[in-house]
Amino acid sequence: MSAHPQLSLHPDRLFPADPGIRDVARRLYQAVRELPIVSPHGHVPPQWLTANTAFTDPTSLLITPDHYVTRMLHAGGVGLDRLGVGRDPEAGPLPEQEARVAWRLLCERWADYRGTPVRYWLEDELVDIFGVTLRPSAQTADTIYDQIAAALATDEFRPRALFDRFGIEVLATTDDPCDDLAAHRQLRDDPTFTGRVIPTFRPDRYLEPAIATWNDDVDRLATVAAIDTGDYDGYLAALEARRRYFVEHGATSADHSHADVQTEPLSPTEAARIFGAARAGQASPAECVAFRRHMLGEMARMSCEDGLVMTLHPAVYRNHHAPTYTRFGADVGSDIPIAAEFTRALQPLLSRYGTHPGFHLVLFTIDEDVYSRELAPLAGFYPSVYVGAPWWFIDAPEAIRRYRSAVTETVGFSRTSGFIDDTRAFCSIPARHDMARRLDSGYLAGLVAEHRLAEDEALETAVALVRQNPRTAFKLDGPIR
Amino acid sequence: MSAHPQLSLHPDRLFPADPGIRDVARRLYQAVRELPIVSPHGHVPPQWLTANTAFTDPTSLLITPDHYVTRMLHAGGVGLDRLGVGRDPEAGPLPEQEARVAWRLLCERWADYRGTPVRYWLEDELVDIFGVTLRPSAQTADTIYDQIAAALATDEFRPRALFDRFGIEVLATTDDPCDDLAAHRQLRDDPTFTGRVIPTFRPDRYLEPAIATWNDDVDRLATVAAIDTGDYDGYLAALEARRRYFVEHGATSADHSHADVQTEPLSPTEAARIFGAARAGQASPAECVAFRRHMLGEMARMSCEDGLVMTLHPAVYRNHHAPTYTRFGADVGSDIPIAAEFTRALQPLLSRYGTHPGFHLVLFTIDEDVYSRELAPLAGFYPSVYVGAPWWFIDAPEAIRRYRSAVTETVGFSRTSGFIDDTRAFCSIPARHDMARRLDSGYLAGLVAEHRLAEDEALETAVALVRQNPRTAFKLDGPIR
Amino acid sequence: MSAHPQLSLHPDRLFPADPGIRDVARRLYQAVRELPIVSPHGHVPPQWLTANTAFTDPTSLLITPDHYVTRMLHAGGVGLDRLGVGRDPEAGPLPEQEARVAWRLLCERWADYRGTPVRYWLEDELVDIFGVTLRPSAQTADTIYDQIAAALATDEFRPRALFDRFGIEVLATTDDPCDDLAAHRQLRDDPTFTGRVIPTFRPDRYLEPAIATWNDDVDRLATVAAIDTGDYDGYLAALEARRRYFVEHGATSADHSHADVQTEPLSPTEAARIFGAARAGQASPAECVAFRRHMLGEMARMSCEDGLVMTLHPAVYRNHHAPTYTRFGADVGSDIPIAAEFTRALQPLLSRYGTHPGFHLVLFTIDEDVYSRELAPLAGFYPSVYVGAPWWFIDAPEAIRRYRSAVTETVGFSRTSGFIDDTRAFCSIPARHDMARRLDSGYLAGLVAEHRLAEDEALETAVALVRQNPRTAFKLDGPIR
Repeated sequence: MSAHPQLSLHPDRLFPADPGIRDVARRLYQAVRELPIVSPHGHVPPQWLTANTAFTDPTSLLITPDHYVTRMLHAGGVGLDRLGVGRDPEAGPLPEQEARVAWRLLCERWADYRGTPVRYWLEDELVDIFGVTLRPSAQTADTIYDQIAAALATDEFRPRALFDRFGIEVLATTDDPCDDLAAHRQLRDDPTFTGRVIPTFRPDRYLEPAIATWNDDVDRLATVAAIDTGDYDGYLAALEARRRYFVEHGATSADHSHADVQTEPLSPTEAARIFGAARAGQASPAECVAFRRHMLGEMARMSCEDGLVMTLHPAVYRNHHAPTYTRFGADVGSDIPIAAEFTRALQPLLSRYGTHPGFHLVLFTIDEDVYSRELAPLAGFYPSVYVGAPWWFIDAPEAIRRYRSAVTETVGFSRTSGFIDDTRAFCSIPARHDMARRLDSGYLAGLVAEHRLAEDEALETAVALVRQNPRTAFKLDGPIR
Repeated sequence: MSAHPQLSLHPDRLFPADPGIRDVARRLYQAVRELPIVSPHGHVPPQWLTANTAFTDPTSLLITPDHYVTRMLHAGGVGLDRLGVGRDPEAGPLPEQEARVAWRLLCERWADYRGTPVRYWLEDELVDIFGVTLRPSAQTADTIYDQIAAALATDEFRPRALFDRFGIEVLATTDDPCDDLAAHRQLRDDPTFTGRVIPTFRPDRYLEPAIATWNDDVDRLATVAAIDTGDYDGYLAALEARRRYFVEHGATSADHSHADVQTEPLSPTEAARIFGAARAGQASPAECVAFRRHMLGEMARMSCEDGLVMTLHPAVYRNHHAPTYTRFGADVGSDIPIAAEFTRALQPLLSRYGTHPGFHLVLFTIDEDVYSRELAPLAGFYPSVYVGAPWWFIDAPEAIRRYRSAVTETVGFSRTSGFIDDTRAFCSIPARHDMARRLDSGYLAGLVAEHRLAEDEALETAVALVRQNPRTAFKLDGPIR
Repeated sequence: MSAHPQLSLHPDRLFPADPGIRDVARRLYQAVRELPIVSPHGHVPPQWLTANTAFTDPTSLLITPDHYVTRMLHAGGVGLDRLGVGRDPEAGPLPEQEARVAWRLLCERWADYRGTPVRYWLEDELVDIFGVTLRPSAQTADTIYDQIAAALATDEFRPRALFDRFGIEVLATTDDPCDDLAAHRQLRDDPTFTGRVIPTFRPDRYLEPAIATWNDDVDRLATVAAIDTGDYDGYLAALEARRRYFVEHGATSADHSHADVQTEPLSPTEAARIFGAARAGQASPAECVAFRRHMLGEMARMSCEDGLVMTLHPAVYRNHHAPTYTRFGADVGSDIPIAAEFTRALQPLLSRYGTHPGFHLVLFTIDEDVYSRELAPLAGFYPSVYVGAPWWFIDAPEAIRRYRSAVTETVGFSRTSGFIDDTRAFCSIPARHDMARRLDSGYLAGLVAEHRLAEDEALETAVALVRQNPRTAFKLDGPIR
């Protein structure tokens, strides 16, 4: 096998090439590389940690659930059905032969991922977690598959063991408001599990009457909250109750992702009227949009009251390819970003709540244009606003550099959220956080090399970005459990 | 003349300054510098190659037809009339004295072009094609003029000789759907000409009823296609026939440039109704726009059927300065970009045709914002979509770097189109392709230096970007002739 | 005090880290570092120079009037009232104790400014103007306060002495059209003051009938101009008269800042009708907007007639946080940028006046997207258009690099405005101009290192950007006084 190109991780990877900058970057990185991981926003199912069942195979762990990976194979002509996407969960684990074929497809197309963070993370995982030393290819696919599969069969690769090995101190999940959070309770009450796994309140579907399931969801909300949602006041009270329930179960934030972040308020009378019409299935599309924008403002009001950090992840055209959605469902790779606008959209919300003591609003974007134009200027004035780290398509080395370059000059570092991985790819968590630490070290080293920042200050900043910034922005400094 | 600054081309030009990166860039560039040129989209008149007439003078070759050059002189206060722009073609060649004065104007204003790719290309052409060794200036203008004029009078500088010397393997022209493609046929049938010159179907004016000439054009379409275009079905059939005619003459792509790329379809009945109204001169502006957007979708449908690659070059405000258009006509430098939007605009088209086997859609933009936000995410999911190379104003060193930086992290390299020169400046073709090769070598070298890509993979990628990517995106791998 | 980190200015600050580029940058910078300052647009009150009163304290000089500084303290949780903002001018100077507390707040939060140009400028000022050698912190705040306060009490730190020490050759202020310009006249007629201080015509409030004070302002305009503004013709005549008055007092430019730069003209009849309605308090919001857009075109027409350079600073959401505006007034840090659009918006204006001999239109933006997409292409065709230097939030090192990178490839250097400081922070003027010179030297050095520009040309360009470009764009080469 020695003829095959090897896979290894260079200790200087992602550091700027200039030797002077690189020297400083190495020193800064040394101070942060071993710090525990704080992951204040992500999509790992908490049930993986409660059940602690071994992962079945490389494909089900590293390919199928990760639309970052599957979408590029799809672009290369591989049907999602060949990757295990959209399988009926009742059908049991992916048959070994199918899993192996999918794995081969990935390895054969390894060249397609050149220059992407997906490849960077996967290489990091293959080497660091599984000890793989061969570059993936058609020739090496089976060998690598077998090596990972063998590892996954051992106790050292069960979810909890990996959680400990990854050095995760806090892991936030993303949860439906009607979720009973039993898994979170179970983890909290389990003396053998010492990590902190907290839920996140994600109410999007309950705030958009235009979604087909809205009426059913609002009915369910009534049941779960034990508050009648037949009228607008009850609906608000039920949402408030579920938020409190999440707070009691350790949640520190509520996450929102709509097509835009407009927040024009309605009068209570008008809001109640549209709510009634929507419950009767008679709200117009324009009324549904107006109601959703109004409710985003209400979420801010509730955040001022119950303390949940408000985070926004807007401006994505969901399920862009209709046939794919019909066949495979949501979150399989056909979401495409659209232009974002925050300044005008958030003005009503910020004029009311922007200086409310303790209110935190973390703004994420995939549309890079708004970093220097809108997000940094907003966070540079409002004590409530934080600029969120690059997310999704722009959670990538050069995009992260552009982000620091675009926001630092207007807000420095203290008003940025710290890194979030936002991932459902559990094994990529260490690689993603390490990537962010390397890039921030490199960025700070550049400031030092240009004599814009003293090295002692750069070091303090590098540590703060890992330790303090996410704790501050996401209010994680409260008592643990 | 030795007191004058010299002109020369440094072998390391455009490579990153960092010595470590530059070393790698040199190695990568060595592997691609001599590869033949594939030019899948451009504006060279094929008649230059059939007639093979000597170019008359430096101005008519290098200034007059190149709005990149003339627009900057215009900005500097030089009227377009002094540069031969807008001359009646019947009036014969530009008088020598006028040509010489125009050349002097360019040389006197050489400093205005500092830092622009126009200057970079011109310097490359002056040195590499014409052997000029003096930096252009008021003092050297006449000497350089004479040197180029003398060269142009020789057989070695006729179009075909240059075509061979430039190492052009494929050259696509841009042609009107009613063109009989006689020049292409003549070149194909000429045993003494071994290059491949293929037409491109460019139907814009036939798809926009708002254009004053539309009715006449649709009449002419009927004549040329020998299909009655009195009704909508005939119009579609005539367009389909002309596309087939282009395919039979070697075309592999159809190019489209409208103000936007919206593709909302009309029902056949509604399309037919608007077509009828437009033919009668009674379609409203809104109907004209709706029809054009519908027809862009129809072009995609036809591409699925006849295999022509669909390329989009949208979002330009044509003829921004009305008096210039009135006096000098189109394409003389007053076209100005506007904001582009692809995600929402293309959703109807892509939901229908985005996964059609064999459909190719190459998306170009001058609005850089959409690279990371829209184009790379689209190409990272749809097997039909390719991200086109930077074009026009952003076919420039730093813009090309921004392009690679913006798209690679989401789609890697395999989903990019490869370089297109899109030029009517024949002599700039080698310089433009060489520039792209140097910049891609530099970009890849940066990935190697940061340990994000192994050098053997970078080398393979550099070669693919020149050789395979344009062939794949533009379907050039079919049988030649 | 030696345990405290020191503050010093590295001679190579802001130069690129690569040693090869840095060497060239040093040489270029040497040629421009001592050149006099030309400041063609800013907000220093001319009364400071006529009165020449000593500045009272560090806070009133360096914090209170500078919303760049106060907004970040506000974001960090410090109320603007604690920084002297919004104080009644009648109430006399800020009490020493309050000034000292505000200064401490700044020094305690010094880390929040890491990586920002605000910090860069302040450090430059502290070291270079006041000789401070301690890094600001809670521990050093009082020492530094005392050191600056002691300096301010001396004659060497009065406004005129600083004006001379800063090497300011031209300083433009920004003035209301009804201002009698007495201060400018006084400075012009004072044989002991040799600087050139010129007014700028800033008519925004007179052009927007939607502003509550518009009718009163137009009344005042009549009084000051001694021309009845009861009808539209009189209103135009009064504006023209005040522009002439400014020209007679040395003004070379008129500055405009509205939400957008649309310039669709109204017929004179329609303009007169809306004017009448607005004077009667009966114009609709849409009519007010249409009138303002029409008037922006009229300002261009007047500029063609009286020669005032037209400068545009659009696309800011003013007073975004309503409670702050109510309590503290305008210009205190809650202005937030919005998306800008120039191509379509300026088409009516440029089609009429874009090639008018002598007309100058300098386009500024905080929305970086338009640099490569719109501003550079416009300036690369229209002889009247100049691309303004980065302004406000993007007057910052990395943003300035992005600006050069975005515009140079389309328009080179000659069509850019040269640096403007646009500041009300008098002491920051030398630091800001020096920053721009360092950055332009670094950018040009990069071109040299990549063999895209010869070093002699880079040197000539570096000098031109400081000396000639602002003189050309702002027509400052006329007779002084």
